[in-house]
Amino acid sequence: MADKITPRSVDYSQWYIDIILNAKLADYSPVKGCMVIRPRGYAIWERIQAELDKRFKETGHENAYFPMLIPMSFLKKEAEHVEGFAPELAVVTHGGGEELDEPYCIRPTSETIIWAKYKDWIQSWRDLPLLYNQWANVMRWEKRTRLFLRTAEFLWQEGHTAHETREEAEAETMRMLEVYRSVAEQHLCLPVVAGVKSETEKFAGAVRTYTIEAMMQDKKALQAGTSHFLGQNFAKAFDVQYQNREGKLDHVWATSWGVSTRLIGAVIMTHSDDKGLVLPPSLAPEQLVIVPIVKKDTQAAVLAYADKLLAELKGVGVRAKLDADDSASPGWKFAEWEMRGVPLRMEVGARDLEAGKCVLVRRDTGEKLVVSALEAAAKARELLDAIQQNLLEKARSFREAHTVPVADFEGMKAFFGLAGEDLAGAEAAKGGFAEGLWCGSATCEASLKQATKATLRCMPLDRQDDIHGNCCLCGAPAKHRAIFARNY
Amino acid sequence: MADKITPRSVDYSQWYIDIILNAKLADYSPVKGCMVIRPRGYAIWERIQAELDKRFKETGHENAYFPMLIPMSFLKKEAEHVEGFAPELAVVTHGGGEELDEPYCIRPTSETIIWAKYKDWIQSWRDLPLLYNQWANVMRWEKRTRLFLRTAEFLWQEGHTAHETREEAEAETMRMLEVYRSVAEQHLCLPVVAGVKSETEKFAGAVRTYTIEAMMQDKKALQAGTSHFLGQNFAKAFDVQYQNREGKLDHVWATSWGVSTRLIGAVIMTHSDDKGLVLPPSLAPEQLVIVPIVKKDTQAAVLAYADKLLAELKGVGVRAKLDADDSASPGWKFAEWEMRGVPLRMEVGARDLEAGKCVLVRRDTGEKLVVSALEAAAKARELLDAIQQNLLEKARSFREAHTVPVADFEGMKAFFGLAGEDLAGAEAAKGGFAEGLWCGSATCEASLKQATKATLRCMPLDRQDDIHGNCCLCGAPAKHRAIFARNY
Repeated sequence: MADKITPRSVDYSQWYIDIILNAKLADYSPVKGCMVIRPRGYAIWERIQAELDKRFKETGHENAYFPMLIPMSFLKKEAEHVEGFAPELAVVTHGGGEELDEPYCIRPTSETIIWAKYKDWIQSWRDLPLLYNQWANVMRWEKRTRLFLRTAEFLWQEGHTAHETREEAEAETMRMLEVYRSVAEQHLCLPVVAGVKSETEKFAGAVRTYTIEAMMQDKKALQAGTSHFLGQNFAKAFDVQYQNREGKLDHVWATSWGVSTRLIGAVIMTHSDDKGLVLPPSLAPEQLVIVPIVKKDTQAAVLAYADKLLAELKGVGVRAKLDADDSASPGWKFAEWEMRGVPLRMEVGARDLEAGKCVLVRRDTGEKLVVSALEAAAKARELLDAIQQNLLEKARSFREAHTVPVADFEGMKAFFGLAGEDLAGAEAAKGGFAEGLWCGSATCEASLKQATKATLRCMPLDRQDDIHGNCCLCGAPAKHRAIFARNY
Repeated sequence: MADKITPRSVDYSQWYIDIILNAKLADYSPVKGCMVIRPRGYAIWERIQAELDKRFKETGHENAYFPMLIPMSFLKKEAEHVEGFAPELAVVTHGGGEELDEPYCIRPTSETIIWAKYKDWIQSWRDLPLLYNQWANVMRWEKRTRLFLRTAEFLWQEGHTAHETREEAEAETMRMLEVYRSVAEQHLCLPVVAGVKSETEKFAGAVRTYTIEAMMQDKKALQAGTSHFLGQNFAKAFDVQYQNREGKLDHVWATSWGVSTRLIGAVIMTHSDDKGLVLPPSLAPEQLVIVPIVKKDTQAAVLAYADKLLAELKGVGVRAKLDADDSASPGWKFAEWEMRGVPLRMEVGARDLEAGKCVLVRRDTGEKLVVSALEAAAKARELLDAIQQNLLEKARSFREAHTVPVADFEGMKAFFGLAGEDLAGAEAAKGGFAEGLWCGSATCEASLKQATKATLRCMPLDRQDDIHGNCCLCGAPAKHRAIFARNY
């Protein structure tokens, strides 16, 4: 199996694709830029969904569903919004055999269709807040696509909330960013930097965009989720006014926030290795696979032993599976299940049976432990927790090792390499997160991007105190501390 | 509240719409034929989904996700399929600002895009069976739409399975029909007739279509779910062959099966009354609402008492809610929660507190019970089970009372009334399920439809023995027993 996976050092992009195709997480489709999510990939999405949905409901949100088609005229009501999304639209011009009076686009995001309805539902402060979320497919016609990370159609959730005051809407924006941060770290083992986007990088139609940014193994940044404070922009565009507690009419304040199937790509890229997929136990379809090592004369006894262990593992809530297929060798199975990312392997043979023991092997470290059958289930649970913790720590250490303060433009060029260079080979070796002071000018961002392809990923929320010094890009007095990186 | 709901006797269609809009289950949208599913409607869908998804997984199925766009050429590969769906397609002609080389349609159903991928994934009998399900939105450009029952876009699940043999595929078709039947009856309290469709009414591309048919309160039939045996039609259209156990190439056998958000409409129409929505406890967002009856001097004590009862109800797993809003009267709340379909109401006032009692009121029968606070939670659970049972039985009795054997064409005309008659007023009073013998001829079906608008809903699976006699439509020797009805 492992030989099907191109090593990262040879071709990082191919390594990523090889893992997805061989672990049967997703596949290409006959529709340009669209993928098929296969059952083993979809099972990961279901676990991400379940965790997020639970947290959304705990924070008072309800799910709803809005039409996937949006009249083109709606998109045009918010000027920045249409400018941002127009180039990426899929357009429906015919329905039921006839040309439509007004074309529809397939939703690239749903602010416009949702705010058109909020106008009907919001009259007074008593109708607020509206805390709605939608699980849906969306479509953005991307030229360059990559499985999970960037596809024309993708699955996501989009929260759309309406509030009485600016303060409430801002608090909601931060609350949901924190939900994303904690799910990313606790559930997906993705350490993330929470920060604010620059004006250049913010969502089309937002007042401010907050983001969580993760670092992949090639040291590029990946935007893993965003939470937008929309101010009164959409309320004004769709004329959504409410009678406030003083009896006066005022425009409603809004947020929106989303994460997508892109998170699956982030998980794959962050944890996997040259043997294949590595998954956090929280997301793995199977958390443990038992591989029996059998010879003809002991087969029945070893399988009975394995069955007993399987029952005990299930009894303590471990998602365990016994691979009793006798057409494949244990060695083939080891490699196959490693490639598929099962966090723990249990090996049981005749000698283990005699000794009342079994072998546990960690996918993340390769560590082997011989444990007594009596404590095997408890030990497996303990190891799964340890793996969950280790994956997060390992990724955090990697990010910290590749987060570097950079003082000036020359430093940036040295850190990232130049945009024009052929970086195919060296790409994985260069770069990381460059941390620097910034004056706030979009011109500086553009210069850096042109020279190095790096962009301003965010201004970390917890690093904005005591800004003294000069912009690392132009030397003018700085206003913010920012993280720059190449990105997905 | 109740006065917002048009009585069934005045206008049955308006009654249905009034309930949906007033109970905030769904709303119209600015997109032609598409609805918005509001949180209280979506919560019902989530419970239907959860139950179905559990049963699909218990029967060995996995979820996957395929592109929502389908190349138009794919649809044309199965002749009956394209003929059936072509008139209802929404067509995407432009993407990313450019006209597409080949237009895509938005999936009306996914057989074609899925079988195009099955060709890549199936080589040998070892790859079979594939037991996949997809939760998705689909689009069929309908001219006449009705909230939940028929909308251009709707949410559904579609199972698509591939098998080695005809027998296996036929068994799968029946297995999933049985899953639908039991979820409809146990979970949605919808008694259904399970049967086979005629050639005229079967799915475009199927060899045989099985259906579950429910009767609404206006005695029309509603097709609540279908399971299709597709034979080798799609395998041949997409050239999906596998090496069988004898080493020979053979086409794969297929099934597909689906239910949709239409089920929500069926639940509303089957159980509700002139006061508003009636919901099975299994689907109700709140199963019980506590309405405190307070006066100034006893307010604190009564609310504390209500809180204690609320905690006990939640403790035994009842989804309970306390309506402590003091801006509305108890009477207003009674009507409001009845309109919203909460199965049980608990009333607590100062006298109840003194006596250590409370009042429970059933939504389905209006029955009032005074119970001791000590046994209130247990009694509530018991009543919820009784309501669940009663709704099913009541609907079954209604259907049985309106299922009538009909011997000849004149009888059919008398039973259904004539197609040309103005049935606006009498519509709800006429018809039902006419059970009759049938010769198997599509001409007979067409004659009946033209004369009365009634169609052949299905040939009930458990009523096909001992067919002796003549077709109730033409008098020729009969081959089947069938149910005829007007339908949604």
